[in-house]
Order: sequence, then C-alpha cells, then structure tokens
Amino acid sequence: MSAVKKDVLTIAGRDYMSRLIIGTGKYADYQQNADALDASGAEIVTVAVRRVNLSDPSAPMLADFIDPDDTTYLPNTAGCFTGEDAVRTLRLAREAGGWDLVKLEVLSDPKHLYPDMEETLRAMKLLKEDGFDVMVYCSDDPVFTRKLEDMGAAAIMPLGAPIGSGLGIQNPVNIRLIIEQSSVPVIVDAGVGTASDATIAMELGCDGVLMNTAIAEAKDPIRMARAMKHAVIAGREAYLAGRMPKKRYADPSSPLAGLI
Amino acid sequence: MSAVKKDVLTIAGRDYMSRLIIGTGKYADYQQNADALDASGAEIVTVAVRRVNLSDPSAPMLADFIDPDDTTYLPNTAGCFTGEDAVRTLRLAREAGGWDLVKLEVLSDPKHLYPDMEETLRAMKLLKEDGFDVMVYCSDDPVFTRKLEDMGAAAIMPLGAPIGSGLGIQNPVNIRLIIEQSSVPVIVDAGVGTASDATIAMELGCDGVLMNTAIAEAKDPIRMARAMKHAVIAGREAYLAGRMPKKRYADPSSPLAGLI
Amino acid sequence: MSAVKKDVLTIAGRDYMSRLIIGTGKYADYQQNADALDASGAEIVTVAVRRVNLSDPSAPMLADFIDPDDTTYLPNTAGCFTGEDAVRTLRLAREAGGWDLVKLEVLSDPKHLYPDMEETLRAMKLLKEDGFDVMVYCSDDPVFTRKLEDMGAAAIMPLGAPIGSGLGIQNPVNIRLIIEQSSVPVIVDAGVGTASDATIAMELGCDGVLMNTAIAEAKDPIRMARAMKHAVIAGREAYLAGRMPKKRYADPSSPLAGLI
Amino acid sequence: MSAVKKDVLTIAGRDYMSRLIIGTGKYADYQQNADALDASGAEIVTVAVRRVNLSDPSAPMLADFIDPDDTTYLPNTAGCFTGEDAVRTLRLAREAGGWDLVKLEVLSDPKHLYPDMEETLRAMKLLKEDGFDVMVYCSDDPVFTRKLEDMGAAAIMPLGAPIGSGLGIQNPVNIRLIIEQSSVPVIVDAGVGTASDATIAMELGCDGVLMNTAIAEAKDPIRMARAMKHAVIAGREAYLAGRMPKKRYADPSSPLAGLI
Repeated sequence: MSAVKKDVLTIAGRDYMSRLIIGTGKYADYQQNADALDASGAEIVTVAVRRVNLSDPSAPMLADFIDPDDTTYLPNTAGCFTGEDAVRTLRLAREAGGWDLVKLEVLSDPKHLYPDMEETLRAMKLLKEDGFDVMVYCSDDPVFTRKLEDMGAAAIMPLGAPIGSGLGIQNPVNIRLIIEQSSVPVIVDAGVGTASDATIAMELGCDGVLMNTAIAEAKDPIRMARAMKHAVIAGREAYLAGRMPKKRYADPSSPLAGLI
Repeated sequence: MSAVKKDVLTIAGRDYMSRLIIGTGKYADYQQNADALDASGAEIVTVAVRRVNLSDPSAPMLADFIDPDDTTYLPNTAGCFTGEDAVRTLRLAREAGGWDLVKLEVLSDPKHLYPDMEETLRAMKLLKEDGFDVMVYCSDDPVFTRKLEDMGAAAIMPLGAPIGSGLGIQNPVNIRLIIEQSSVPVIVDAGVGTASDATIAMELGCDGVLMNTAIAEAKDPIRMARAMKHAVIAGREAYLAGRMPKKRYADPSSPLAGLI
Repeated sequence: MSAVKKDVLTIAGRDYMSRLIIGTGKYADYQQNADALDASGAEIVTVAVRRVNLSDPSAPMLADFIDPDDTTYLPNTAGCFTGEDAVRTLRLAREAGGWDLVKLEVLSDPKHLYPDMEETLRAMKLLKEDGFDVMVYCSDDPVFTRKLEDMGAAAIMPLGAPIGSGLGIQNPVNIRLIIEQSSVPVIVDAGVGTASDATIAMELGCDGVLMNTAIAEAKDPIRMARAMKHAVIAGREAYLAGRMPKKRYADPSSPLAGLI
Repeated sequence: MSAVKKDVLTIAGRDYMSRLIIGTGKYADYQQNADALDASGAEIVTVAVRRVNLSDPSAPMLADFIDPDDTTYLPNTAGCFTGEDAVRTLRLAREAGGWDLVKLEVLSDPKHLYPDMEETLRAMKLLKEDGFDVMVYCSDDPVFTRKLEDMGAAAIMPLGAPIGSGLGIQNPVNIRLIIEQSSVPVIVDAGVGTASDATIAMELGCDGVLMNTAIAEAKDPIRMARAMKHAVIAGREAYLAGRMPKKRYADPSSPLAGLI
C-alpha cells in the first residue's frame, strides 16, 4: 500500500495527494463551498480574482471559510478576454495574496468560452517574464499544448468540453495525444458533468481534473463532491492498474476445462 | 453523513454496505483472490459450484482464504447449459454449504455466453419451488426481467456486454428501462472492463455491479479491485446527488455580472 | 458495374434490388405515403392489417395509391399482444389479399414496445404450420434469433432501439453477433432516426433496414425518404467495399518520401 | 425536385453540385484515381503540388487521366511545415497551372499531422495579399475558424480526426459550433473512415466533406467511392429534411386508437 502513498501530483515543485481541483463559483454561499471542498478531498481551489472577495475585510471573505494555510489558492483570470487583462489581474492577485502559482485563462466568445490561444500564448510569455508559475487553460490542440510546455507552463489544462456544459470529454483522441507528448501535468479543465466523466479523464492518463459546475450545480453539491473524490481515485487507480483488453467475443469467467 | 450510512443494498432480506460483487475465477491463486476481495471492499463473492473446490478438504479450499462467516458466498451455475443442470448444481451447493441465496445462469452459445432465457425461466420456476432465493443472470430485455421479477427473483442481473469482453454497457437504454420498472435490485453482471464502466452502470441507477475478468485480468488485479471500489461508490453517489443538466453551450463558472 | 446489379436481397425466394422497407403509418395521407415510397426506392411496404383499410371499397384504400402489383405488401401484426391475436390477424390478411409473406410482431409493454419473445416463438410455430413465410420482429438477443432461424423464419428483424424512438442502433455488438451466425436475411427493424443510423446498420452487415417514423415524422418526409434511399445504398456499398482500418495516429494522404 | 437542383455548393463564386472532394494520394495508379473520381461524382480533386506530377511531360501526368477542364484541381500544400513553404508551393502551382483556388495546410508533428494554426494564419495573410482564394485546413477550434473567416478564407476545413486515421468525427460539438457561426462553406477535411462518417458530417450541417484515405485504402476503392457519393447525398438530404426528434420511450408506428 506504500506504493499508493507515493502516487503524488507534483505541480511547480509542490506535492498533492489529491488529483481533483475544484472551483469557487456558483455555490449557494462560502459555507457550502467549504463543505464541498471538504467532501471532495481537494487540496487546491481555483478562485476568480475578479469575482471573489479576497481583500475587502468588511464583506464576507472566502478565506474565512477555506483556510489558505490548508488549501492552495489558485487565482485564475476568469472574465479576461485579452492577454493584458489576464496579466494585470494576476499581478493584482500576487499583490493581494502573494500567490505565484496561477491559472491563466484568456477567453473568447461567451457562447463557447473557448480560450483564444494566440492571446493565451502572449499572456503566458508575459507571466513567465514576471516569474509566475502558470497553469494554462487551453484548447485540446496538441500543437498549442506543446508550445505552452516549451514556454515553461507548470501544467497544461485542456478543455474537455465547453465550460459549464457538462458534456464530458468530447475528444479523447486529442487528450491522449497531449498526454503522450507532455512531461508536465495534464489536467482536464472544463466539461466534466458527472462522476464517470472524471473517471474517464483519469483513465486516459490525465494527471488531474478541475471542475466547478458539475459539483456546484448538482442537486446535492456536497454528495456530488464526494462522488468526484471517488471518481478521480477510481480513474487514477484503474489507469495505474492497467485495464484488461477489450474482446469481441465472450470469455468465460470460470474456465470450464477439466470439470467433471 | 448518517444519510450515507443508510444507503444499503438489500438482497433477499440481507443488508450490504458495498454494492460491488466480485468473482472467484481467473485469479492467479486463492490468495490473490482474497487480496482483491479485501481491496474491493465487496461483501459478496460469487463462486462457480462446478469449478471451485468447496468440499474436498485434501486440496486447497477457497474457504481457507475467504471466510464464509465474513463474506457472503453466492454459488452460481457457470458452465450449465440447461435448466436441469443448473438446478442440480445449486441443490448440490445447498447440500455442501447450506447456501440458499444463489445465482442462476443458464448459458447458450460459448461464443457470446448469453443466457438462454427460456431455459432460465424454467430453471427459475424449479428453484423457487425448492425455496431458493435466486439472483438471475439475464439478457437486458425488459420483457424477461419483468417476468423474472413476477416469478420472485431476488435480484435481476442483466448483462452489460458479453461475459469477459470488457466492452462496457452496450445498451444503456435497456438498462434504464429495466431499472425504471423493477422493484427488486438490478445488478449489472458481465461486460465491465474498467472503472468508468462500473461508474456509468451505477449512474444509470443500478443497485450494484458484479464483475470478475475486469479485476482478475487487469495487469495489477489488487489495484484494479481498489479502483472498482471507488468507481462503484462514485457512480452511486453521483446518482443520488443528481447530476447537472447537459448544456449545448458554455456557461461561465464565475458569473461575471456586476464585476468592476 | 454488373457486380452491383447482382447484389440482390432475396427473401423467401423473391429478389429485391432495394434493401429499404418502409411503413405505412403516421403519414399525413396515402398520397404522401406513396410519394415517400417513390422517393425511397423501396419495393416493400409493411402494412398494419388492423389499421390500414385493405378491404372496404367505400373508404379510401391504400391500394389506390400504392399498387400491390408493383410493390410487395408485407402485412404486419402491429397492435397484437398475444400470439393468437397475431395468428388470427395474419389469417385475415391472407384471406383479404392472398398474402403469404408476412411480418410477425407480438408486442409487450407499450412503454417500450419490445417483442414478447416467448409469445413470438409460439406464434411463429403456428404460422409456419399454416404455411406462411414469416419475417419476425424480435429482440437483438442472438439466442432467440438462432431459434427463429431454426424454426424457419424467412428473415430475422431485430430492433435497433425502441419503435419510434429514433435513437439509432443501441447495441452493435449484438447486431454483429446475429449477422455472423445467421444465414437468412437480417433486417434492422425499429430505432432508425436519421440517415446515418441506416448507413451504420448496413455497414455492420445487415441485409436491409425497415423504418417508418424516421421518414413519416421528418419535417420533410419526402426528402428524408430520398435521404434514406442513399443512406442504405451508402452503407451497403461501404460494407461490400471493405473499409480502411482505423489508426491511432495520423498517416499522410500524400506520402512525402522522395520529395525534393 | 427542382428545389434539389438548387442545392449547390458555392466556393469562391463557383457552383458545384457535388459536396464531396476527393484526394489524389495513395491510389494504385492514376487510372484507379480517375475511376474513383468518376464513381464518387466529385467535381473537385485536391492535388499535393509537391508530390503529383503537374508539369513534367515526359512522365505520366494526372491531367492525362483527370481532365482539368471537367474537374476543378485544388492544389494543396501537403508536406509544408512552415507558412513560407506553403506560400512558395502555391505560387509554383499558380505558375504551373494558373490555379487561384487553393487549399492551404501547414502541418506540425508527423505523429498527428495537425495544422500549426499560428503558421496557418501567417500563410493565410500572405496568400490573401497575393490574391488567392484560400480554402484552409484547420483545427476544429471555433476561435481560429472565426479568425480565418475574418481574414477572407474561401472555405473553412476543420479536421474531423487525424489525417489518415479513419476515426470519424471526434468532436461534433466543435463542428456544430463552427457551422453555426460561419457564413463561408465548412468542409470537414480528414478523419472520415467509412460512409457513415461522411453522412454524420453532413447531418451536422457541413457544406461538404473532403477525403482521401477512406477511399484509396478501402479494399475496393471504386466501390467505396460510390458509397461515399451516396453517403454525402444521404447526409445532406437528411440535414435539409429535418430529422425526427429522439424519444426516450417507444412510440407506435401504427397508432392503434380507434381500432376495432
């Protein structure tokens, strides 16, 4: 069992036991968010710098519910549609909280919220020059994930399906190609709708899964958070265990040769 | 969390916390089988009466590795191709071990090992007259699962795909129809190949999953057994939590209205 | 091209060039039905004996629009829920129109309209004794299609999905198993929703496809009938042509070796 | 029927009746290529300028088998890995054959042959300045297809799956998003393996399909070319006809209300 203990996820030099990252949007309140975090076993929460109150002590603060000493805060640039916007936002985050490990997302059309990869590359370059460790939300195009890795991304975060759609991983071929060629963690970000979507992502060989809506908009978010904890472990363990081959025909469970 | 404790699987009046049932074929040896059982958290193992040594004390016995006092033994009729064969086999099992809760399977062509449902119904009738509690391996045809339930089956066990194929659930439409109309437990039996297959079965609303090859023929059976434990819990919890609706377009995780 | 001419579908000794069979329910009127037939290129229409007016000369008659001398009428037992009902209905059809080639369907629960295979086998036996050539709507269970063939069925007609659902073929594994073991025509009956569903059925190796709702409830039934004509030809030709193997990686269309 | 006649595909001001474009690589010889073209009904062939002999009269020439007066030659840049390479290649093509309508592809890693979208955009700009009408092989990322359209692309040609893989359309969500937002033709390029893949592409609303390996590497390429002709028509007609809605439960083909 000690082998299992060693299966850590390392991002920018920090080790995590959990391979699930959850968000902080769409919850009923901060308490529910904290309860979901607890049920999920996640050690990282991602926070939209432009939305969540990180610094006004007169209003409720997320940090009163989720302790930044226990949980890694991963500031993100949700709502940024240009590279400059994204860079400015993350600089503010660093000033406010000292966070160096950040998640970059530069969005395009609100209809699909896909990343604009040209803008993303531009912002990535600026952030690296500023000394950030950058996890990057990106399309599932292996050409761009390669470029991001070459630029020093701390993690590649391809989308599985449009943000908030809950459609599950649309293109496992691309995700597999990305995993095969990457030496930094690959974390599916966006598209997970239910537990099996997360399990499938991990079975493909992803290093982790980030999700928000799938938990926050389940009928019972806390219970779904718990489901996701198990789903990610199940997929990871199945990946490491090595599945049986698929067969076109039946194969008896109980070999019958030599029976009386 | 007390709500979770109450989510038991009840079969023929007995309560189980685990919704995973594993087999006893294809393992390297009884010790590996016992280790897999331990890792899986299963409380029921199914045993091919015609294959496993249940009564010869001079040869290694499964019961020396898996204690029948701790784990429910579910004798099955693997290798039986007629109703009479199946009935005779289960009567022997009852004499040998006193088992009343049994799994009936009457197979047909070795190429696909589908159940012969006419023979299955005939055997079912005889077994009920004999006072057995009968869990029944069956096709995924809702007409026959209805008949089995009307005849007093203790559980309906439709196949997900051919035995040992690892193809996953082929016809979720049928499984859903069966679940909607059944008031006894519905347990997918056969076809699971990896963790996500089990999660998907449970998300459809199945009450449990039975598998053998997926664990025994994984590269690391013990690790896969652990994966399956989590997979079944993940699917069950996701089903109870109630997943988010799927959407055709994106929906921002962090609502941006009212941002500065 | 002469090879193509020889690719006929032979049912009960009669040859057909088209592998598409269409229904006569749900159309706006008989004229639209006849136009759809024309656009589809089908040579067989199936007719619910209990619904369509085949004998009352004072009301509009299907035969005034679709000439039984040009198109094979295939009487069916839609609406029959017992074997006796089905047999009685087809005897009436024979008296009314002299039809010997018939389609048997014995339905069960209206929710899914799956065949009751026990009743179907019983009716099949009676119809064979009466000298009918029987095409049989059945589940996609290869055990039962084998029994039907052994009893002398003129064609095996497994469902692809519930009647009228338009879900497409749910279980290609079963359809393939049935095709591999059958020596009479295998015709997918029920479940087709759009053209690609029919193409996929034919690519699996089916000998034909029967559909009703997919055409009759399309926004433009005549245009969909034309689509289906091409879809069935496309699938049949692709099956006979032998598709390329699937590959996990790219393979350049234009080999570049030896380029300047 | 006159409505069907008007369903033309217009690319850069030219009208085509066929929506299928085929390649000129991997065929046994030019004669087989010409026969496949004939069977496919295609009016456009795409030609790798760097591979096919377009100008050396001492060697066999494609133009001796496929008459450029009857069939549109679409020069492509297969084998180009930089924008400059691609532009130089197409200038040569224009000098050799006067072709203004061209297909741009700037490839990346041979393992997946995905386009490098940054290089593609750069080449696109240069080609527009040179006055070419440019059809563009691209990823299925709607952000980039929008940019290509804004730059004046004559057609958007997203990949369905890796070139030569035959895996079929991997991400219908993306293809649909691209179709919804585009006002120039959208033609799936790469990934088709069999007839139903082409039908599915057209049912999504694509304006056309380009393929090479699916035909050239079928066991019988001529027969597969014919299959593809029908597959594209089937999908187009089904799209225009408007398919029936999918239903979760059965819906009788022959309404039984009012039966005797």
